[in-house]
Amino acid sequence: MKTGTQHLYIPGPTNVPEAVRQAMIVPMQDHRAPDFGDLTMGLFRDLKTIFKTETGRVMMFPGSGTGCWEAAITNTLNPGDKVLMARHGQFSHLWIEMAKKLGLDVEVVDVAWGAGVPVNEFARILGNDRHGKIKAVFVTHNETATGVTSDVALVRRALDEAFHDALLFVDGVSSIACIDFRMDEWGVDLAVTGTQKGFMLPAGLGMVGVSPKAMAAAEKNTMKRCFFDFADMAKMNDTGYFPYTPPTQLLHGLRKSLDRMLDEGQDVTHARHRRLATGVRAAVAGWGLELCAEHPSLYSDTVSAIRVPAGVDARDVIKVAYDRYNCSLGSGLGQLNGKVFRIGHLGDLNEGMCLTAISIAEMSLAAAGAQIRFGSGVAAAQEVYAEPVARAVQRNAAARIAAE
Amino acid sequence: MKTGTQHLYIPGPTNVPEAVRQAMIVPMQDHRAPDFGDLTMGLFRDLKTIFKTETGRVMMFPGSGTGCWEAAITNTLNPGDKVLMARHGQFSHLWIEMAKKLGLDVEVVDVAWGAGVPVNEFARILGNDRHGKIKAVFVTHNETATGVTSDVALVRRALDEAFHDALLFVDGVSSIACIDFRMDEWGVDLAVTGTQKGFMLPAGLGMVGVSPKAMAAAEKNTMKRCFFDFADMAKMNDTGYFPYTPPTQLLHGLRKSLDRMLDEGQDVTHARHRRLATGVRAAVAGWGLELCAEHPSLYSDTVSAIRVPAGVDARDVIKVAYDRYNCSLGSGLGQLNGKVFRIGHLGDLNEGMCLTAISIAEMSLAAAGAQIRFGSGVAAAQEVYAEPVARAVQRNAAARIAAE
Amino acid sequence: MKTGTQHLYIPGPTNVPEAVRQAMIVPMQDHRAPDFGDLTMGLFRDLKTIFKTETGRVMMFPGSGTGCWEAAITNTLNPGDKVLMARHGQFSHLWIEMAKKLGLDVEVVDVAWGAGVPVNEFARILGNDRHGKIKAVFVTHNETATGVTSDVALVRRALDEAFHDALLFVDGVSSIACIDFRMDEWGVDLAVTGTQKGFMLPAGLGMVGVSPKAMAAAEKNTMKRCFFDFADMAKMNDTGYFPYTPPTQLLHGLRKSLDRMLDEGQDVTHARHRRLATGVRAAVAGWGLELCAEHPSLYSDTVSAIRVPAGVDARDVIKVAYDRYNCSLGSGLGQLNGKVFRIGHLGDLNEGMCLTAISIAEMSLAAAGAQIRFGSGVAAAQEVYAEPVARAVQRNAAARIAAE
Amino acid sequence: MKTGTQHLYIPGPTNVPEAVRQAMIVPMQDHRAPDFGDLTMGLFRDLKTIFKTETGRVMMFPGSGTGCWEAAITNTLNPGDKVLMARHGQFSHLWIEMAKKLGLDVEVVDVAWGAGVPVNEFARILGNDRHGKIKAVFVTHNETATGVTSDVALVRRALDEAFHDALLFVDGVSSIACIDFRMDEWGVDLAVTGTQKGFMLPAGLGMVGVSPKAMAAAEKNTMKRCFFDFADMAKMNDTGYFPYTPPTQLLHGLRKSLDRMLDEGQDVTHARHRRLATGVRAAVAGWGLELCAEHPSLYSDTVSAIRVPAGVDARDVIKVAYDRYNCSLGSGLGQLNGKVFRIGHLGDLNEGMCLTAISIAEMSLAAAGAQIRFGSGVAAAQEVYAEPVARAVQRNAAARIAAE
Repeated sequence: MKTGTQHLYIPGPTNVPEAVRQAMIVPMQDHRAPDFGDLTMGLFRDLKTIFKTETGRVMMFPGSGTGCWEAAITNTLNPGDKVLMARHGQFSHLWIEMAKKLGLDVEVVDVAWGAGVPVNEFARILGNDRHGKIKAVFVTHNETATGVTSDVALVRRALDEAFHDALLFVDGVSSIACIDFRMDEWGVDLAVTGTQKGFMLPAGLGMVGVSPKAMAAAEKNTMKRCFFDFADMAKMNDTGYFPYTPPTQLLHGLRKSLDRMLDEGQDVTHARHRRLATGVRAAVAGWGLELCAEHPSLYSDTVSAIRVPAGVDARDVIKVAYDRYNCSLGSGLGQLNGKVFRIGHLGDLNEGMCLTAISIAEMSLAAAGAQIRFGSGVAAAQEVYAEPVARAVQRNAAARIAAE
Repeated sequence: MKTGTQHLYIPGPTNVPEAVRQAMIVPMQDHRAPDFGDLTMGLFRDLKTIFKTETGRVMMFPGSGTGCWEAAITNTLNPGDKVLMARHGQFSHLWIEMAKKLGLDVEVVDVAWGAGVPVNEFARILGNDRHGKIKAVFVTHNETATGVTSDVALVRRALDEAFHDALLFVDGVSSIACIDFRMDEWGVDLAVTGTQKGFMLPAGLGMVGVSPKAMAAAEKNTMKRCFFDFADMAKMNDTGYFPYTPPTQLLHGLRKSLDRMLDEGQDVTHARHRRLATGVRAAVAGWGLELCAEHPSLYSDTVSAIRVPAGVDARDVIKVAYDRYNCSLGSGLGQLNGKVFRIGHLGDLNEGMCLTAISIAEMSLAAAGAQIRFGSGVAAAQEVYAEPVARAVQRNAAARIAAE
Repeated sequence: MKTGTQHLYIPGPTNVPEAVRQAMIVPMQDHRAPDFGDLTMGLFRDLKTIFKTETGRVMMFPGSGTGCWEAAITNTLNPGDKVLMARHGQFSHLWIEMAKKLGLDVEVVDVAWGAGVPVNEFARILGNDRHGKIKAVFVTHNETATGVTSDVALVRRALDEAFHDALLFVDGVSSIACIDFRMDEWGVDLAVTGTQKGFMLPAGLGMVGVSPKAMAAAEKNTMKRCFFDFADMAKMNDTGYFPYTPPTQLLHGLRKSLDRMLDEGQDVTHARHRRLATGVRAAVAGWGLELCAEHPSLYSDTVSAIRVPAGVDARDVIKVAYDRYNCSLGSGLGQLNGKVFRIGHLGDLNEGMCLTAISIAEMSLAAAGAQIRFGSGVAAAQEVYAEPVARAVQRNAAARIAAE
Repeated sequence: MKTGTQHLYIPGPTNVPEAVRQAMIVPMQDHRAPDFGDLTMGLFRDLKTIFKTETGRVMMFPGSGTGCWEAAITNTLNPGDKVLMARHGQFSHLWIEMAKKLGLDVEVVDVAWGAGVPVNEFARILGNDRHGKIKAVFVTHNETATGVTSDVALVRRALDEAFHDALLFVDGVSSIACIDFRMDEWGVDLAVTGTQKGFMLPAGLGMVGVSPKAMAAAEKNTMKRCFFDFADMAKMNDTGYFPYTPPTQLLHGLRKSLDRMLDEGQDVTHARHRRLATGVRAAVAGWGLELCAEHPSLYSDTVSAIRVPAGVDARDVIKVAYDRYNCSLGSGLGQLNGKVFRIGHLGDLNEGMCLTAISIAEMSLAAAGAQIRFGSGVAAAQEVYAEPVARAVQRNAAARIAAE
């Protein structure tokens, strides 16, 4: 029998804060009640703050981030439209597959799984696209499979410098609300995420930020869709409602999680993710291992994909962690299967939780045959997390004097 | 300030049983964990029991019943396909609108809102369709807007007698799990429902039962879809997983609600719905009012749409119930707005709850100007619900003797 | 299998509001943490508001109201002390038994079960007690077994007019927070209640309001106690803590229930209880039955004890309600067993809930053999609860005009 | 703003398992309902299994373990009775204080805080007590303040060898359900515990195991008590009820926690506590620090009290852990204040959780000025917790071969 906390360090679903769990324990209610907008209108407003958009709007579709990928495409593009995408991990790969399946003509730039979005290559292609055949550029802001964060602002610059009019799609599933994201400033037209990552909720709602330009595109495009229709959703949202029954318990949870996010402040949230991620990366270095991400500038503050040593199967690491230590780590996806394991370090997290993940990973690596010195990763992370002694002692002394 | 229970008598979301609420209070978990199938495989199996299908399968899509309407269409039909549908209420109307929006050629048979599916007219049309142009027939099993249950078996017979090969689509959103429904026996190819009605869960998952014939159609059709793709879902489901993050808390809730449903037994559940509905209908007669449903054979056991007297605005009834008595009643939709109010009597219900709804409706009708004698509806319902005195007295006496 | 709401109309535990249930779903925490007082100090403060005391304090003891009865006695009285008590129902009876068991010399005034505290007789006895032998007078403010509210202010006047120095003990278990209660104004020295009645929480904490005079008595009394010691509790409470581990989840629930109580305002709460109780009493009259309380001036606004007709066993009423209608009614206690059943109408309640109780009681009475006309009680209550038609119609019309 | 898990490593309240939390989210119910015994009778039965008594009974009193200390005394002893007790920590000290306050004549044997119960001294005193003046011997099985487990069986032997008839009282608050405890075999007459330790529930119920000899003593003793009366409680329990309203939500939680305990099996539970405690002790050694417990034979498997180095204030360690790392550690109580901090390692725990506590303690010690090498404690614990590499690799290989 398993006892104790089921440690959860996958890059989503993430750990739900207690206050958010509380908020979701609600009886059912009438989603057409006259005062339903008292709940929803504030959500629509505050989501815009998190997405950093004033001109756009954020819609929530029951489903998942994947559903919102589809919503973004089917509402704004036309069958056969040419789009530019990069493949550098499992999620960018899946997005490409979806785009093809939905009938787009996808120009894929393949780079190493561990690389970022190839901005220079994008710039070149966009520059050559004299006739504006490319209708959209897709960017996976944070490739969850490899732990790589790409620079969306640079892609925007590439578009601008090419005087290119393509829509800018961003997959922010594992970045928005954790890592710096600026919808308006970066000129993002469609920004997709879901509830189960930085928003610290269960899965069940996808979110999509839509720029005025994207809304305009939606008015005249010809792809078929109904459930994911922007116009229907926007029209109902404007009055505080949804075109069909929304998962009201998640909306209540979202209210509380937005309260927490606004309370902490996005800058502080980002800095916290950065600090915690730095500790995890220090642990990886302490073990003598390497990240999948090719360069420090690409390191993701929400998830680290860690390459196991030759001769070790990453699946064994994950299996030991799960079976023996009641801990879920992320697996290597697609071509990385067996080669990396992932630690998700996003959402409602603190130092102790990261050290838990690190110390379990340490034992699991060892059990899977890696030459790991116990405590080596933990100690490296502690160096990052520890409060400087001098300051703590001083502060405690001051507190004691004040109390006396 | 409102106090006490928020009485909920809309036809969905329905009241969630306490045991199901408990079951949903779970921490997040890894939906790719090796033992995740321990949870999901049993769900897939038991859903088949509820849908009464052995040859088909039941898939769950994050989203809602509306999403599954779309899934049913986009997976099995082709652009421009001709389909046969009846419009006799708001939900059949919305389904027609969706079908058109998704590019189908819809032959609409309009009948009164309050009538059932026009089986004879369907039979005539199908009989005339010598070349099999009609690819699908759509039936709204229970028109939630009018409280009308149509006879799916008769539509099947019409198809068979015309030797017609069209797929049979059934909207069972407010019928499945409450009213007799037999997917295999009636030859239903696509049966759609959601979690927030008879399954006694929050909204968040749509369900679609798919016959082998429909699965075969899905293999060769050309409509675009990705999130709602049957093949992707079926492939993952076969191993216990989903193609994207499912709302795991709802899956745990579903486990418990299926346990309850199997425990009660579908026949008993149907009889309970019948008995409770009979009481509500007796109350309506007691008030001297009429149902929207045109004929007793059409009366729905899950929802009653009640016509208010001339001079009374049904919206006032609903408003008083909500503002003054903390009770949500269903409103009149579309052309019935202001003319009917609805009492949902489905899901986890008992006699006391129905009497609550009736007694509040009684006061709300009066407040809205209807000539209603207080207690008239309640008494009529009580006649239905009350245990025969003789039996109760006898039983209690026996219990006392046994105890002494 | 039972389905639907388990209707709860006993006079405690009462229905817990959803917001309070949410608030109690907390992980465990350190009850000695430095910031624990952030939670507790506000509770101590707001309890004083509810008890209406500025000079006294309110302590919470893990346990129940019964425990606080004992705390009140053992902290302020001495072995063999003479005390004055009336017996007019099961709870005053039990309190007398406790007082005897704890070694007090109890002068019992027996009156009918259904009568109030015999103030005149108390006045006479106190007047005759020239040497102040009587150390305390005990008043059961609301006798839960009979549905009788006694007049505490009159007892205070009797004490004052006799220039008597005895401590005034009040059992306010089923009155405080529901019915007008004024600790300071009425000169109450020890006021006892628990969490599971007007405070709308689960059982688990007793509360006792203690006047400065009672605290002074506690300093020099000689009865043995430790767990229930006022001095230990007061000393720890002053710093925000408890002498032993308190049930922290209840403290969080209490925070929320106090918030609701302060939000509604005690006057409004009392008026609500009055209005709802009036409806229940109208129903009893509608049935042609009588209350146990002897006179309208004694009618309790929190619980009604209803006498069944001759030849009917009240236990059958309760049994049918429980077995057949999933509804808990209160039973007749002690000498009233079989002769009355009780409807608790206190705490988080509204009109619809009272009508539920009434309609179920109606069917249960009939099943137990009483000659009851269905709807007769419900209609009488509806007359009390219904909004005047004219006003409602007018208001709705105005709202429509405003909206147009 | 604090984020993430509030890490809880005090020796109670302990972490509540998710399944137990779920089970406590119940609506209120009638504690006098005819089927209430369906819940309670199984609890009474299974508690006997955990206490390892067949001849005795286990009663639950709303309140806490402290309340049950009092219940044990007031039900079985008489005013002025002589009892034998040892003081070797804060909780044995408090029990002595209570015994004195309740009027007992306490012979206190003072030993070092960190020593166990002085069995030899007890044996000597009992041997000299020719006239059986000593009516009871009190043993603190696990002194929570010092992390010392004493040998109850040896005390029983001392009693037997002296042919002494005194009652044997055991404080098992932080031992029962975690550490080997055998009520019948060790001839324990009164065994006290509470819900918030090994039973993995919130505080709110005390439990006391009572031997037939203690029940017999209760029949003729003369101490005053009412709320804590054994006879009243036993009489009601025999029918499945309580003499006053019990906290029903805790009873439902207890059902689930007993299920878990019986599922795991007490032997396995004890071994798990032993293994986890061994890791924590290895960490302490790794830091070069010492336990408060004087000898390995006294080491508690539920809590470790750790002496900080000279010059370091243990309060600083605790303060840093709380303020900076969101972690509650236990403080030094009484004379140990500032000298030790405590890690509670009992209840629903696993390796990862212990490593969390250790790694946070490590950083907190350092911040408080201790010379601690980061990772030193963690590594030592990992050596205890880690699965042998050879076995893991082998097992994983086998699993892969089987899967292929």
